[in-house]
Amino acid sequence: MTAPLAVTKGHGTQNDFVLLDDRDGVMDLDADLVRALTDRRAGIGADGVLRLVGSGRLEAGAAALAEDPAATWFMDYRNADGSVAEMCGNGVRVLAAFAERLGVWDGTGELILGTRAGVRRVRRVTGPPAAATWYAVDMGVWSLPRADRAVADGADAEVTVPGLAVPRPGLSVDVGNPHTVLALPGVDELDAADLTTAPRVLPVPPAGTNVELVVPLGERRTDDGVVGAVRMRVHERGVGETRSCGTGACAAALAVRTWAGAGAPDVWQVEVPGGVVRVTVSGDRVELAGPAVLVADAVVDLEALR
Amino acid sequence: MTAPLAVTKGHGTQNDFVLLDDRDGVMDLDADLVRALTDRRAGIGADGVLRLVGSGRLEAGAAALAEDPAATWFMDYRNADGSVAEMCGNGVRVLAAFAERLGVWDGTGELILGTRAGVRRVRRVTGPPAAATWYAVDMGVWSLPRADRAVADGADAEVTVPGLAVPRPGLSVDVGNPHTVLALPGVDELDAADLTTAPRVLPVPPAGTNVELVVPLGERRTDDGVVGAVRMRVHERGVGETRSCGTGACAAALAVRTWAGAGAPDVWQVEVPGGVVRVTVSGDRVELAGPAVLVADAVVDLEALR
Repeated sequence: MTAPLAVTKGHGTQNDFVLLDDRDGVMDLDADLVRALTDRRAGIGADGVLRLVGSGRLEAGAAALAEDPAATWFMDYRNADGSVAEMCGNGVRVLAAFAERLGVWDGTGELILGTRAGVRRVRRVTGPPAAATWYAVDMGVWSLPRADRAVADGADAEVTVPGLAVPRPGLSVDVGNPHTVLALPGVDELDAADLTTAPRVLPVPPAGTNVELVVPLGERRTDDGVVGAVRMRVHERGVGETRSCGTGACAAALAVRTWAGAGAPDVWQVEVPGGVVRVTVSGDRVELAGPAVLVADAVVDLEALR
Repeated sequence: MTAPLAVTKGHGTQNDFVLLDDRDGVMDLDADLVRALTDRRAGIGADGVLRLVGSGRLEAGAAALAEDPAATWFMDYRNADGSVAEMCGNGVRVLAAFAERLGVWDGTGELILGTRAGVRRVRRVTGPPAAATWYAVDMGVWSLPRADRAVADGADAEVTVPGLAVPRPGLSVDVGNPHTVLALPGVDELDAADLTTAPRVLPVPPAGTNVELVVPLGERRTDDGVVGAVRMRVHERGVGETRSCGTGACAAALAVRTWAGAGAPDVWQVEVPGGVVRVTVSGDRVELAGPAVLVADAVVDLEALR
């Protein structure tokens, strides 16, 4: 191997990443390298690349340090197409597990991470299953941006999904990025929906929208008290259907909680195709918890990449 | 990491594999482990698993040793779904590159490999590009199994492909497995074909068939003399469209060579979506040559696999 690069492969509810340890900020991570690493047949394969880098080593990190001097580590996230992305709810958990294994965080208290969307705080929590190590991430402030122009009870948009007979009412939810959530009466309809193309949303959202199809599953009694339960599928804006979307899970829980009205739980288990995550609402903020798995450590031959 | 397993990731024209060094035949490679390793999001991800194992260490290897006592190494190939597969034209090249790197073959002469389809001989050859190391594999005997019941000139079947206006005449080619090849007049039609579902072939082949859509590109003068050129896309039986299919490339070259008639070249460059391979016809035998790339060495945490 003439040009070895050490990487780690990991995933959070099957949203998968190539992780790079660049604590010293010496790596030249250009779009070509990101595309080559994330190529699922000619490379390692992943939805994106997560680089752990000292915040002082890059321009975007300076803003994080200005926001919180304790944010000494930065999450440099790139989409598989090589473009820079701001944040990734599943990715931040996987990066936290990576930071813990590298020893830059001892797993206690909070890991304070700079991201291009601002500073994020990560805590170790437990599953279910109770023995599992999960990570919880403050996802910031949420809102119902179009609540003033509802077209029906708890809805402000109309969504047409191939495979479903009629257009459905949808609720717009903002979790730092735009979502439209529509409720389906059962898992049969959820399975019948065709998400190979983007659902059509009216009125057309100016910056596009992620679309979540959700089936409310009622409430469950757990060790943590009564929690709400939701199953969902997601079509990510510009990507297609994915096995998990962190902000989408938050939006799904927030919409169902809104529809349930006063007295609805603040804690929600959200079943996504790639696993289960937990969404906790605290006033105008929302927290996402879920698993993070480090699958393999690898040495890539850069000369062998296309 | 509590349960580490060393693996290598490689590909041949983007047909990709997880490679296992099990020379001593001590590994318990069950279908669950194959599925977990080849899972593209929760595992390493690949089209299949290639295990290099001493022929004396497993039952199928005994047959190889009986056929040729020099076949001391065996290619144990598994599909991503965990099922046992007989042979893989791209996989055998990648396994040869792996054997060479492990030092069980010095790259000279022939690597004599046992497979469930019989003994295969692999040689190192050169590209194009001329500097590239390629591997050539004897793919065995080919035939035109239905030549006696032609429905049209050089055709014995009718193939309907979504995206193409009318059914096309196709030629059945056997390369150890069944193929139906149809010629298209240009790359526009090749690009327009929809291979998300299996083309419909009449009469229905009893064991199914791979289908190759090919565009003959004429002859090219190369350092090796005049060679034929073909571009193709392939729908693999039971799999779907793939970026490369070794026996499919052979079938494509053999069909176009048949249509070209007397005086047609014996050497063909076949452009597949994942790269270029070279097919050489020698009487009733056919040889496939192409690249093999070892991308990364990895240590997988078996406890982290689903």
